Amino acid sequence: MLHVWETLGTLVFCVSGAIAAREKEMDWFGMFVVGLITGTGGGLLRSVLIGDVPPRILTDPLPFALALAGVGIALLGAPSWKKIRRVVSIMDALGLGLFTVTGIRIAEGKGLPWWSCLALGVVSATFGGLLRDVLRNEVPLVLRKEIYATACIIGGLAMLGMGRLGWPDGVVLAVTTTIIVTIRLLAIRYAIHQSQAG
Amino acid sequence: MLHVWETLGTLVFCVSGAIAAREKEMDWFGMFVVGLITGTGGGLLRSVLIGDVPPRILTDPLPFALALAGVGIALLGAPSWKKIRRVVSIMDALGLGLFTVTGIRIAEGKGLPWWSCLALGVVSATFGGLLRDVLRNEVPLVLRKEIYATACIIGGLAMLGMGRLGWPDGVVLAVTTTIIVTIRLLAIRYAIHQSQAG
Amino acid sequence: MLHVWETLGTLVFCVSGAIAAREKEMDWFGMFVVGLITGTGGGLLRSVLIGDVPPRILTDPLPFALALAGVGIALLGAPSWKKIRRVVSIMDALGLGLFTVTGIRIAEGKGLPWWSCLALGVVSATFGGLLRDVLRNEVPLVLRKEIYATACIIGGLAMLGMGRLGWPDGVVLAVTTTIIVTIRLLAIRYAIHQSQAG
Repeated sequence: MLHVWETLGTLVFCVSGAIAAREKEMDWFGMFVVGLITGTGGGLLRSVLIGDVPPRILTDPLPFALALAGVGIALLGAPSWKKIRRVVSIMDALGLGLFTVTGIRIAEGKGLPWWSCLALGVVSATFGGLLRDVLRNEVPLVLRKEIYATACIIGGLAMLGMGRLGWPDGVVLAVTTTIIVTIRLLAIRYAIHQSQAG
Repeated sequence: MLHVWETLGTLVFCVSGAIAAREKEMDWFGMFVVGLITGTGGGLLRSVLIGDVPPRILTDPLPFALALAGVGIALLGAPSWKKIRRVVSIMDALGLGLFTVTGIRIAEGKGLPWWSCLALGVVSATFGGLLRDVLRNEVPLVLRKEIYATACIIGGLAMLGMGRLGWPDGVVLAVTTTIIVTIRLLAIRYAIHQSQAG
Repeated sequence: MLHVWETLGTLVFCVSGAIAAREKEMDWFGMFVVGLITGTGGGLLRSVLIGDVPPRILTDPLPFALALAGVGIALLGAPSWKKIRRVVSIMDALGLGLFTVTGIRIAEGKGLPWWSCLALGVVSATFGGLLRDVLRNEVPLVLRKEIYATACIIGGLAMLGMGRLGWPDGVVLAVTTTIIVTIRLLAIRYAIHQSQAG
């Protein structure tokens, strides 16, 4: 179940990366690379930081297949992106939640302290999008306006708290993902931006 | 022989990086750093991803020497770059071919699956130039227009295929490099861009 | 003593990163991330390159605390930045000196050759600021105008030379830091830029 959602999340991030690349007039290779990096960059940095190499992207062909699929979806779906934007937003929020959860779990398995696990969860969920924006030559969105990392942090703190309380694992994962997805979707719906600092 | 060409390839990439830095009004340190990263960034990322640390750049002084030489060449040769652009293009294409071949070989030595070796070959050949463009605050060229990564992918697939067929090693390396160089030079000659996606 | 100065240096870099992020209209999370990366990016890259993972940032909560403090200082101090610019410059120069020294020492402990230790010292001191500028979508300052890396290189060479001569450790560290800080402050005072290459 977790794996299914994570795969879906990766696919959505790959599609969003490919669309973002296309907007910058990149060719298919650029769309593929930016999609792949958007979908896997967070997990990749996490792997390098905790010494978990070679990372999954080099041992499991699934991310490459998802990135290729992402390019296809981005090209085929171009005319209807506006209609299904809502679907994409929901899946993107789901991906965000799942990537945070997965990142924290893997960091916990390495015996890292709680704040470090939280940071790796946020990195897992947001670093791909950050790289996407750097490659598009823009100031990364995650650093600017939307309640994005904030959702990951709140959800991640809740996850760590529930873990301390000894709640069952499945409940912890489900509640955490729900918290992150809900915050993220509410932020989109009501166009809540964190007020600019200062 | 391979080492000679690889050294030449690194040097050309260092020169191209130093020239690119100079166009952005960087000082000599900027030219040195951008040249060094252009020449070694691909191999560096490959080393980090497969856990091969410290990378060669920290144990062999040659890349530093090549980057210094690259700065000198970029400065001295400034008046005549247009005349010898053709020479630079040919050497750059050679570097591309050799870096792809080297990257794939090293990845194979780590027992990684074929698609992973192919990806590391492309990374080895193109990531330095990608970083060069990020540091110059531009959308990376490799993601945009030229038949660049495509040449690496076609050559890399041929290399993996010849390897499966049991062809002698020297032949495989020579044919692969020839394929990549040929595609790249034809693309430059006829100004073939991959048509923009979509 | 060394630890105190290094902590101060990290804090100053975090503050400078947070201020730089605020200028680009980032939210508090952006200020935090850019501050953290400015303060720790150099040490992080060094750790990844020499295989020293997980890096300190994942095992010691101090950098996170310093980055949070940096955001607070950047916000609270906003009205008076101009008045205390001189203090910030001095502390920044100190951070530069200490980071170079620390980077070289750690690299020496790994048995790397001298030029590699020098390079890691420069990377430790400058890479955080380079990432800060990439995230702000600008050509990195360190690659452009100021006598910044040059100060690290001169100081680092002096440090390696004194080490060979067998000078006592405390003297080596103090003299090296003094050299770097002095060069850097003189460069600021007299607005000496390295003349643009070529």
